[in-house]
Amino acid sequence: MTTETAIFPDTETLAVPAPPSAKTLAAEFARTAVERDAAGGTPLAERDALRRSGLLSLAIPKRYGGHGASWAETLDTVRELAQVDSSIAHVYGFHHLLLATVRLFARPDQWEPWYEQTARKHWFWGNALNPLDDRTVVRRFDGWYEFSGKKSFCSGALDSQMLIASGIDEHSRKLLVAAVPTARAGITLNHDWNAFGQRQTDSGSALFEKVRVEENELLRDPGPLTTPFSSLRPLLAQLVFVHLFLGLAEGAFEQARHYTLHEARPWHRSAAKRASEDPYTLAHYGEFFVGLESVRLLARQAATRFDEAWVQGPTLTARARGHVGVAIATAKVAATRVGLDLTSRMFETTGARATHGALALDRFWRNLRTQTLHDPVDYKLHELGDWALNGTLPEPSFYS
Amino acid sequence: MTTETAIFPDTETLAVPAPPSAKTLAAEFARTAVERDAAGGTPLAERDALRRSGLLSLAIPKRYGGHGASWAETLDTVRELAQVDSSIAHVYGFHHLLLATVRLFARPDQWEPWYEQTARKHWFWGNALNPLDDRTVVRRFDGWYEFSGKKSFCSGALDSQMLIASGIDEHSRKLLVAAVPTARAGITLNHDWNAFGQRQTDSGSALFEKVRVEENELLRDPGPLTTPFSSLRPLLAQLVFVHLFLGLAEGAFEQARHYTLHEARPWHRSAAKRASEDPYTLAHYGEFFVGLESVRLLARQAATRFDEAWVQGPTLTARARGHVGVAIATAKVAATRVGLDLTSRMFETTGARATHGALALDRFWRNLRTQTLHDPVDYKLHELGDWALNGTLPEPSFYS
Amino acid sequence: MTTETAIFPDTETLAVPAPPSAKTLAAEFARTAVERDAAGGTPLAERDALRRSGLLSLAIPKRYGGHGASWAETLDTVRELAQVDSSIAHVYGFHHLLLATVRLFARPDQWEPWYEQTARKHWFWGNALNPLDDRTVVRRFDGWYEFSGKKSFCSGALDSQMLIASGIDEHSRKLLVAAVPTARAGITLNHDWNAFGQRQTDSGSALFEKVRVEENELLRDPGPLTTPFSSLRPLLAQLVFVHLFLGLAEGAFEQARHYTLHEARPWHRSAAKRASEDPYTLAHYGEFFVGLESVRLLARQAATRFDEAWVQGPTLTARARGHVGVAIATAKVAATRVGLDLTSRMFETTGARATHGALALDRFWRNLRTQTLHDPVDYKLHELGDWALNGTLPEPSFYS
Amino acid sequence: MTTETAIFPDTETLAVPAPPSAKTLAAEFARTAVERDAAGGTPLAERDALRRSGLLSLAIPKRYGGHGASWAETLDTVRELAQVDSSIAHVYGFHHLLLATVRLFARPDQWEPWYEQTARKHWFWGNALNPLDDRTVVRRFDGWYEFSGKKSFCSGALDSQMLIASGIDEHSRKLLVAAVPTARAGITLNHDWNAFGQRQTDSGSALFEKVRVEENELLRDPGPLTTPFSSLRPLLAQLVFVHLFLGLAEGAFEQARHYTLHEARPWHRSAAKRASEDPYTLAHYGEFFVGLESVRLLARQAATRFDEAWVQGPTLTARARGHVGVAIATAKVAATRVGLDLTSRMFETTGARATHGALALDRFWRNLRTQTLHDPVDYKLHELGDWALNGTLPEPSFYS
Repeated sequence: MTTETAIFPDTETLAVPAPPSAKTLAAEFARTAVERDAAGGTPLAERDALRRSGLLSLAIPKRYGGHGASWAETLDTVRELAQVDSSIAHVYGFHHLLLATVRLFARPDQWEPWYEQTARKHWFWGNALNPLDDRTVVRRFDGWYEFSGKKSFCSGALDSQMLIASGIDEHSRKLLVAAVPTARAGITLNHDWNAFGQRQTDSGSALFEKVRVEENELLRDPGPLTTPFSSLRPLLAQLVFVHLFLGLAEGAFEQARHYTLHEARPWHRSAAKRASEDPYTLAHYGEFFVGLESVRLLARQAATRFDEAWVQGPTLTARARGHVGVAIATAKVAATRVGLDLTSRMFETTGARATHGALALDRFWRNLRTQTLHDPVDYKLHELGDWALNGTLPEPSFYS
Repeated sequence: MTTETAIFPDTETLAVPAPPSAKTLAAEFARTAVERDAAGGTPLAERDALRRSGLLSLAIPKRYGGHGASWAETLDTVRELAQVDSSIAHVYGFHHLLLATVRLFARPDQWEPWYEQTARKHWFWGNALNPLDDRTVVRRFDGWYEFSGKKSFCSGALDSQMLIASGIDEHSRKLLVAAVPTARAGITLNHDWNAFGQRQTDSGSALFEKVRVEENELLRDPGPLTTPFSSLRPLLAQLVFVHLFLGLAEGAFEQARHYTLHEARPWHRSAAKRASEDPYTLAHYGEFFVGLESVRLLARQAATRFDEAWVQGPTLTARARGHVGVAIATAKVAATRVGLDLTSRMFETTGARATHGALALDRFWRNLRTQTLHDPVDYKLHELGDWALNGTLPEPSFYS
Repeated sequence: MTTETAIFPDTETLAVPAPPSAKTLAAEFARTAVERDAAGGTPLAERDALRRSGLLSLAIPKRYGGHGASWAETLDTVRELAQVDSSIAHVYGFHHLLLATVRLFARPDQWEPWYEQTARKHWFWGNALNPLDDRTVVRRFDGWYEFSGKKSFCSGALDSQMLIASGIDEHSRKLLVAAVPTARAGITLNHDWNAFGQRQTDSGSALFEKVRVEENELLRDPGPLTTPFSSLRPLLAQLVFVHLFLGLAEGAFEQARHYTLHEARPWHRSAAKRASEDPYTLAHYGEFFVGLESVRLLARQAATRFDEAWVQGPTLTARARGHVGVAIATAKVAATRVGLDLTSRMFETTGARATHGALALDRFWRNLRTQTLHDPVDYKLHELGDWALNGTLPEPSFYS
Repeated sequence: MTTETAIFPDTETLAVPAPPSAKTLAAEFARTAVERDAAGGTPLAERDALRRSGLLSLAIPKRYGGHGASWAETLDTVRELAQVDSSIAHVYGFHHLLLATVRLFARPDQWEPWYEQTARKHWFWGNALNPLDDRTVVRRFDGWYEFSGKKSFCSGALDSQMLIASGIDEHSRKLLVAAVPTARAGITLNHDWNAFGQRQTDSGSALFEKVRVEENELLRDPGPLTTPFSSLRPLLAQLVFVHLFLGLAEGAFEQARHYTLHEARPWHRSAAKRASEDPYTLAHYGEFFVGLESVRLLARQAATRFDEAWVQGPTLTARARGHVGVAIATAKVAATRVGLDLTSRMFETTGARATHGALALDRFWRNLRTQTLHDPVDYKLHELGDWALNGTLPEPSFYS
């Protein structure tokens, strides 16, 4: 555990308990992961377990009642949860992202109370921000705003206490972002998420019907993507994905390894006595390991650079922010490719019987394939190529 | 349609109707493929439709009441069905394989009546042959045999009229293969198939409890793998897989193409106005096409060589049989690799919304991943390497 | 040998000798291939051997004194020569391409005498057509033209009897193509080709200084890319490359195989007694074989379709021409990728000692890497993607 | 520059000059790299420049007159030299390896004088150790030994002052290793290295004719591979390769980048105005960057772990040594694959004109292809697979 200053300058030294362990929860979630993957829907019991664990305030500075963990530490818990349940890891990672969002887009007098309440009341934050969906329109009134319209891909919004929502100003067509209680009148969250992967992320749709949003709930100072520091937000989203993909691939590796060691039989044409001694099986595992190690180092480098940028606060330069973006994009491309290869090829080390439905080992590929489509890997490579070839740093957007 | 002699010398010219079309059935099966994939179990309605269609006697010579199609033609119908439903394509392809099995392993006085009855009564043949599962034991009596024990991976056995079953002679430990009516007393077929792919192949377990098998139901003249000609049987099994994998990949391509053309949106950083004009999307489709074309040609070559070997009958040499095996193994490796790449990468041309559960586009990967584990691609490459480097033709086994 | 009509309708049956064998020449060229690769320059002795062999009139119809071979047959000799010497195979293949050029771009009264003289006098045709190099300008006079300027990538121009040259009309900026004797006053061919591969193709520069070109030496009826039939020209160029790349890869495979069998030693950690029994070595050869077989079938399909289009002559439709283009582009992409992989990975089956300079086994990669840059494989994939996804056939250009 | 203790405990603080810069030398060597690649042979001027630079004592502790650099720092200079000249980088890296060899295999009273003299007299150490070549036999006499026979792959032996040589004890058949002056009577170093890559490494053969080796020149205490600490030697050899491969790939990247930016033209079908804006070109550079970053991090991790193991000296455990081995093998596999891809694919971002002989851009592939064959990447993957799957650490050998 690094010092709290890794995230916020904080001179107080509060007597807080040891930070909670994600591993314990992961072991618990693993027991029901297969059945919950089949069922889909909202993992209410697991979300409550997260609330009880204290992990929801892991990255909140101690002065606000949190554990003051660095981002590297926080993201590591995302990775650990993703090893067994990438749906929960996603909404959990995005909870932290949404807390960072208010920190980055709003004034201290706005986010400080939210941080304190989140830590005290174990709030879960949900997402209704999708900037590519422009169907929610914002009308301005005197001192308040009205959000009306639909919004898709609202991961973790169901069963949340707070929501980060976005809409388009009806006049300026600019994106406005707000933090509102999920229970606010006029908000309907639909149970309509049904994808072949990430089945318990509740990434369905929301409906805003004349939802009143107060002036001080709008995140406009400095607002989204206005400064290099506020532009760290999309980078953190991408970094959550990096750790999600990595954890997912590590989980798949462990399941494959266990099967190869304990269940698989060598092919009758193999000279090996055990499946675990077959030369081709060993070569597959060698390649899996090289891939995973690469991603682990790239992810660690990206998280470290992100923490370094974070502590600079508003003094962060566009150039420094750009370098963080390059590190994160690099890790994301590698995590995507290594993960997709591993979650499909792993079966060549287990044999046909590992396709048994009760094991649901296909969920690793289904989950990764679904989540890696959040934004195209082709354009991440484009962005990285522009850096590598032309020295052009990624232009801040909600995806880079 | 080539002449009947492609399979059997047959001088009679019977007035048989035009061979049935698999395309019509495929269009019908496509309508329910997604829901049946979710449900699993036995596709009774579709199996009956296959019975009614006449396709079950497609490869049966005209003199026995069939359509006298060549293997190339017959396998093409497997490919066409696999484009929309690879479970049905599997049991359908194996039905033809099991008919070929009695032709290759038994005497004409054995298989001729079976052929006639299959054509007349629209029998469906099922599989209980898995030679790697030695739990079924055969005890010899005077003029009859008794099969007892379990057998796994019995694709298409449920709802079949005839079964190809195997057991181990209790004394000699040799594999014995028999053709018996599925309804024979003592045979229990379990509804226990539950894999993440090929969910309607009923590839579950069978139980033989003192099942009486008559002398003339045993396929011992010439029996399995005894001559180059009888050793064509495993090659035909592999060739069914080639066409299954190819059809599956073609089906995935068509679904992806439809989505890219009609649903996908270009990424906001793309210069293209339509998703279908994005340079990276075009490159993916270019690579899919090169892969599919390669597999199509390799599959066609393999089927043609198989037909050439088939018409040679018992005069087929080991060398000629080996060359057919090389062609089939080559096609199988290419079909496996091209298919696994395409069924996973296709989503990079559609975007995240194509993961919607109602489309179930993941079924292509799930089906292919499951079926490609039948026997390891690593050892197919080993076999091909031995041919390419050392000039050693594949040694006949139940898998090569 | 198929009938002559594969290329031209020709009712005469002349008593011509059997078509010459490229294999014999290939065996001869192989003996000096390594030293000539090191030396670079013009392979005068080998070019004379080609002249003597009769291979230069292989594709010329019998009625003009040639052997009347189909394109599939002719391209097969390109492949056979490329197995041992891809420089010679290139200029030899392009010789046939240049003869096809006059057939496709000019009137019979122009090309017929050239064909007869080529067959009788064993002319070698050279290339000075590079349409992307617009430095040669054409001025029109009364009944004749004057070509002035430079031209790069003039493969096989040195030591040729006839030259296909292009220039830009000074007024219309249109490309004009002419066939002129290489010895024509004002033409200087520079000995300035120096690439790391294809070192004996003489693909250097030419200088035209007020070169007089007669009206009837201009290929304007129908001229380049004016009709689907005349647009076969670039497809034939691409098809020559397909056979060049395939032959080159086959040659590399044979050299690697010979080394693995006769020189290589198993790694001390390998369980194999012989290098040729090592499991990883066998897997590499298995993959090489699958790749080569794919390319062989794609090349054969492309050549067959080209022959079919060729015999249609001016009645060839744009659509039919487009389908030929797709087949050729597909084969070219596969040949490029399979070849680049094989010519680099082959060393993993031979070990370090196979890098000995006297063997010059790197020449396969150097030659293939150089020639595969003729036009970008990325844009071939783009073109194929446009076909596969949008159904758009390749638009005729000098590269597709 | 970390403290000296990174390599040896050393309490003295000597007034040594700043450590020499490899970058300056690299810039100098770059100017002649192309012509020296063509010429082959011994780079005498460059070896002298290395002597003058002080880099040859970079890793020698300050107490012996060296610069006391850590291994991470020393290997970084190997990488920097490899960016422009991987032949020199090889013999330079192996010079440090050979110095480490005497440190690891011999008693302090043996290696301390050698270290002092190397630092004072700017000795260059050469290699004649190839343990797989058993043609050199050692006969024991009273207090001295006689080496007789041949030895292959003696990189950097020519123009060296000291030689690490090995032979097989004629009775015990055990490997004996010695450090002897290169000028010792009976040693003949042949100018017979001629490979298509790494052409100035002088990795040719040596002949030992009754060479007298003194008792205290034998490295037998503790001798090769006898303890975990002495078994660091092959790991350092592998780590030199990691940095060699990485530097080589980085050099290729820089050359390609320069060409794409300053010379390349966009393909006529590209929508881009500049080659550097073409979408496919950008994607290639994106992939190059992801690969290079992965290897950079893996190399850094491996070097750091090696330094940590090194400072433990004889207390190093087999398990700790094994973990270092895993990190190094992982980096080596990644460096091999990324490098081979980049040095071949780079030309797809430059176009055909970049194959010009004067640029010799093929030397990156030739050098890397040659050096990556030192020991098979297939067996590195096997080793890593055994670790990843079975938890088995690499068994110490001269290659792992």
